[in-house]
Amino acid sequence: MGADSGKLAYLKGANKIEFREYDVPSPETGAVLTEVEFANVCGSDVHTWKGKHPSRKSGMMGHEGVCRIVELGEGVETDYAGNPVEEDDLIAPVYFKTCQCCQPCRNGHFHGCVEGTARTVGSSDKWPHFTGTFATHYYIEPNQYFYKIPEGLDPKIAATANCALSQVMFGIDEVGIERSDTVVIQGAGGLGLSAIAVINEIGAESIVIEGRENRIENARAFHADHVIDFTELETVEERANQVAELTGGAGADVAIEVTGVPDAFAEGPHLLGTRGRYLEMGNVSPGYTTAFDPALLTRNSLDIVSRARYDPWFLRRALAFLEETRDTYPYETLLDQKFTLDELEQALEQSEERNVGRAVLTPE
Amino acid sequence: MGADSGKLAYLKGANKIEFREYDVPSPETGAVLTEVEFANVCGSDVHTWKGKHPSRKSGMMGHEGVCRIVELGEGVETDYAGNPVEEDDLIAPVYFKTCQCCQPCRNGHFHGCVEGTARTVGSSDKWPHFTGTFATHYYIEPNQYFYKIPEGLDPKIAATANCALSQVMFGIDEVGIERSDTVVIQGAGGLGLSAIAVINEIGAESIVIEGRENRIENARAFHADHVIDFTELETVEERANQVAELTGGAGADVAIEVTGVPDAFAEGPHLLGTRGRYLEMGNVSPGYTTAFDPALLTRNSLDIVSRARYDPWFLRRALAFLEETRDTYPYETLLDQKFTLDELEQALEQSEERNVGRAVLTPE
Amino acid sequence: MGADSGKLAYLKGANKIEFREYDVPSPETGAVLTEVEFANVCGSDVHTWKGKHPSRKSGMMGHEGVCRIVELGEGVETDYAGNPVEEDDLIAPVYFKTCQCCQPCRNGHFHGCVEGTARTVGSSDKWPHFTGTFATHYYIEPNQYFYKIPEGLDPKIAATANCALSQVMFGIDEVGIERSDTVVIQGAGGLGLSAIAVINEIGAESIVIEGRENRIENARAFHADHVIDFTELETVEERANQVAELTGGAGADVAIEVTGVPDAFAEGPHLLGTRGRYLEMGNVSPGYTTAFDPALLTRNSLDIVSRARYDPWFLRRALAFLEETRDTYPYETLLDQKFTLDELEQALEQSEERNVGRAVLTPE
Amino acid sequence: MGADSGKLAYLKGANKIEFREYDVPSPETGAVLTEVEFANVCGSDVHTWKGKHPSRKSGMMGHEGVCRIVELGEGVETDYAGNPVEEDDLIAPVYFKTCQCCQPCRNGHFHGCVEGTARTVGSSDKWPHFTGTFATHYYIEPNQYFYKIPEGLDPKIAATANCALSQVMFGIDEVGIERSDTVVIQGAGGLGLSAIAVINEIGAESIVIEGRENRIENARAFHADHVIDFTELETVEERANQVAELTGGAGADVAIEVTGVPDAFAEGPHLLGTRGRYLEMGNVSPGYTTAFDPALLTRNSLDIVSRARYDPWFLRRALAFLEETRDTYPYETLLDQKFTLDELEQALEQSEERNVGRAVLTPE
Repeated sequence: MGADSGKLAYLKGANKIEFREYDVPSPETGAVLTEVEFANVCGSDVHTWKGKHPSRKSGMMGHEGVCRIVELGEGVETDYAGNPVEEDDLIAPVYFKTCQCCQPCRNGHFHGCVEGTARTVGSSDKWPHFTGTFATHYYIEPNQYFYKIPEGLDPKIAATANCALSQVMFGIDEVGIERSDTVVIQGAGGLGLSAIAVINEIGAESIVIEGRENRIENARAFHADHVIDFTELETVEERANQVAELTGGAGADVAIEVTGVPDAFAEGPHLLGTRGRYLEMGNVSPGYTTAFDPALLTRNSLDIVSRARYDPWFLRRALAFLEETRDTYPYETLLDQKFTLDELEQALEQSEERNVGRAVLTPE
Repeated sequence: MGADSGKLAYLKGANKIEFREYDVPSPETGAVLTEVEFANVCGSDVHTWKGKHPSRKSGMMGHEGVCRIVELGEGVETDYAGNPVEEDDLIAPVYFKTCQCCQPCRNGHFHGCVEGTARTVGSSDKWPHFTGTFATHYYIEPNQYFYKIPEGLDPKIAATANCALSQVMFGIDEVGIERSDTVVIQGAGGLGLSAIAVINEIGAESIVIEGRENRIENARAFHADHVIDFTELETVEERANQVAELTGGAGADVAIEVTGVPDAFAEGPHLLGTRGRYLEMGNVSPGYTTAFDPALLTRNSLDIVSRARYDPWFLRRALAFLEETRDTYPYETLLDQKFTLDELEQALEQSEERNVGRAVLTPE
Repeated sequence: MGADSGKLAYLKGANKIEFREYDVPSPETGAVLTEVEFANVCGSDVHTWKGKHPSRKSGMMGHEGVCRIVELGEGVETDYAGNPVEEDDLIAPVYFKTCQCCQPCRNGHFHGCVEGTARTVGSSDKWPHFTGTFATHYYIEPNQYFYKIPEGLDPKIAATANCALSQVMFGIDEVGIERSDTVVIQGAGGLGLSAIAVINEIGAESIVIEGRENRIENARAFHADHVIDFTELETVEERANQVAELTGGAGADVAIEVTGVPDAFAEGPHLLGTRGRYLEMGNVSPGYTTAFDPALLTRNSLDIVSRARYDPWFLRRALAFLEETRDTYPYETLLDQKFTLDELEQALEQSEERNVGRAVLTPE
Repeated sequence: MGADSGKLAYLKGANKIEFREYDVPSPETGAVLTEVEFANVCGSDVHTWKGKHPSRKSGMMGHEGVCRIVELGEGVETDYAGNPVEEDDLIAPVYFKTCQCCQPCRNGHFHGCVEGTARTVGSSDKWPHFTGTFATHYYIEPNQYFYKIPEGLDPKIAATANCALSQVMFGIDEVGIERSDTVVIQGAGGLGLSAIAVINEIGAESIVIEGRENRIENARAFHADHVIDFTELETVEERANQVAELTGGAGADVAIEVTGVPDAFAEGPHLLGTRGRYLEMGNVSPGYTTAFDPALLTRNSLDIVSRARYDPWFLRRALAFLEETRDTYPYETLLDQKFTLDELEQALEQSEERNVGRAVLTPE
């Protein structure tokens, strides 16, 4: 690989990854060229790799990550919080851009930008090539927010911010959680653990539903107030009864779905009390249904809020949150296995089996 | 039937109605004894009569209605808007009471009162007997809101306010509809037509999805901007495409489910654009599921608001709305068939076949 | 005083208090007769006593308090949270009733009930006489919420809940404070200290502006994050600069006025950053103006929320908050001086000089 | 003036305008060079010209306007609604840019961008010179939103959108106005008339307070429901009584200040009922106070929302609103006097005397 070339992982089709080499692009006005420092494997990467994404069958891979600035395009002097940036600085990019022009953007819903992730789809031959983080380089476009990693925050930890934690903080902000709420969290993977931390800091009470042993341990390490093991309470009814018991019969104020399992969505209304709010974030791949009873909603006047992605400025809040709470939660234990870029398939396999919290990739 | 006795319809079990006679109760402090002037048959009455309600298998029947004051309990000098009331005044009661003490009430969610409709369940022998509007008399309890019928408003029309229109106005207030919104209304029965009127007055654009000929006619008579006939566009995809076309490709801003059909709920996300809001009000009887794809929510960051019943003061707004708009919408044509109390079964049968907009009962 | 008579403090005019004796009333349906256990002196009592209230020049006195049930009216079996009550139970009453019929009540704004405090105005000869807490007895009307004192909560502390803490919790709920906010609190009297506690529990940062030494000490004892002593930073500009410095130049997210001093209101906009929110609760007596510059609002797109009283169910939350946090905050130190009912004038004088946090009255 | 040079009005100090000539700038990436087609004189231009702005004592002038595209910078293919643009298209620019990085921008409050109008301040020698609309050319920067003028909308009318109407639509969106509200509008200048139109389309009732005869006529031409002439009802009390009478004693639900007179702000609370909302937009120049009684807020639990500028996508809504309602409101009559750029001082003088609705400038 030449000094001015880089390598990227390209998905050709289900389970078929190919490494490709391209000249690194020179950043246009407003853009930034970076090297990938750490890239994490997120559940949706695994999903896409397995060919389960309804439309994205090929393209660049990876979206979580921390990068090191190689070259700043004209006009770029600061990150999107106004902090001066220069070569060699470590930054976290929002994994999608915001076009400002599409229907969601022009209603202030930047998280819904229809152009957001378009550039990772299609052929890698399309300049600027490096639009995924499973690569040696990453190209940040104009109007793609990025933020400097706060001093003293371990960059490996920071690499989780631009997907899991930002997503969770945005969702929780949108659904609204108060100190007096009791919140059920369905699933203790990356998003679920992030949710426990955020809910704890709000001062609300958390009840985690999870079945895998290592995830239950993680939930406890993140100070979940209660854990319901679904290998012990095997039916919806048993779990609903347990939540009712833990809430003095009222049911939870909020429940958060971060399992990616459609049946978890159908379980949601059973866990909530009157005027409960449900935050749906985990099911992101259309094509999978669950038998859902809509009258369970009206019976208790429930609300559902669903969000994919986040308004880009939430990444800054996520990084600040990590910095503030790094001694309270064992973020590092989640990143429990390291892989090189060349070991990507192994990392995906391990992640698929949910044996790791988050697999961390380094370019070499 | 003696001067001091009355008659009420009692549901003994699925399809079994019995008329029973009781002494009319003397109103306690804060209560009001009334005679029923008009009672309408609502879809949920039919549902309960057929034995399809999951828990209410027997009890007093009827909840929509307009009543004439017979006797005021001690301390009752005005309606719940402060208007003086006296014997012989026509009033519309909220069909449920608000205990002020239960968990929803004590969070200001009066619509969710857990005691709300408890008194219509169980034996009719329980004093004060007359807790349903399919009867000669109706007993309004303390803390059960009621409002005087505005001067010049036809009481038959007013009789629709305390269920359909109040429900719709509350739901629309909760989901939030603005002048610039395009709103799909699934179903043009009593709630659907009320929704068309309210949406029109807000200035928003309405698209009604309906298949029965008489209901389509009604939708047009209520000035629906567009009607999609589901007997012509038979698949979800076709209807979704039609909504997309009517909205310049964006999808609707809001959709409202008032069909009571679970599959309509599953269709909802297909009709909405990014950050669309869905108002679920029609499916009120648990026990019926639909194959629902939760990723259709996250894909577009959709929200769902569901509500059963309404904060009691919305009945006052509903009556005012009817008064203001009585010349704009043909409310009277909806009440297209009259029955006496003794003809209740016929009225229910006709309603079940959806041949009538709303059947109107008079005590004799 | 006979076994069936009681004594109450009556304000005849500015600074003129008279003790009067009446037969204790028998509770009507829905009402409760109580004996006053503790009554606190609030700033507004002092204000009214001095003749500074614009309209209330005479009437019954006192509104904070904890009472012991003497007799329950017909139909009263529980408090407004559904807890069973019986004779001798200690309860905290909301100090105003909610008519359910007036314009604010019928829009769900129970805190604004226009009939709320009407009954404390006018002659004490009017039955049921005992409508103020500076008395041996207190009569709770139908539709006047009350709550049982939680087990293990010192009733003296509970006596502060029905004015100061409920007010603060309602106001903060309305203005909205999040964990990441920095909040300036103008004034560390009863409301200010309550505000510090609530803000701490939300996890937000607090900056208190106060000048009296004992109040500054109290603010620190309640774990205020920062205190600005206005006897040291004497000008608005100096204090604004200090707030700017403490917030990295941004200004506060929220400021809360609980001094009752009009000039504090005019200072508010100087303390806030862009889109700051201001909560006005302290200035409750019309007739006193301050030189206010409205362009300071638009310059930073500020919002102001003002509230007097609270939705009655907030009293329940306030009692629960006290119970939860009784070991975290030194509530008892605030109630630093005790008086008998006969010493009322002394208690008012001491309170006027702001030498006491809250004066506690006991009937004897 | 050479083919490649243009002319701009520069404010040297109070009442001192100088015309200056510069080479027209070539647009950088993401920018657009335009010629000014129409520029309107807004009240704040007059204010700045008179030297009354607290900080802007010199700089480029003019911010309302419609422009014709001369040259598109690299990468600019569409307006901010995604409509393709090319040379000679007429567009309306948002008069400020949004940096995306400052504290307000990074909380999604783009209207509050601290860099927003910075570029119009200071020397005109600073490239790109043409940052005000009182000029032959106007330079639209990257991240400065602009929208194509809809087909069939008179560009002179469109020229009012980017200040008055966008401001009003944003403010009304933020304060929230519903069909059932009664709204007082203080002042019937450009913002006031825009407010009448928007309120009418929402279906709410409008009460305008104004004294100048031509403005009262305009208010009526814009279909104000009621007009209070303050030359007839001369005191706050009289006007408050009149509003009370028009609202059945309740007071207005909302009041909007668009006079720019501090005393109007102090009058606001007198016009509102319980839980009334006040929208402050007119007072934008700090340094002028009014005697304000904050207890008038708490007495009725009032809220104040203040906003300067608007989220940039509101300009698109404003243009759409004008297009939709151009036959309903006599927008053109407001632009009652035309001036050339050279006649700028005359235009400012006429505007100062409030003899014109909006003076229209054309470059020649």
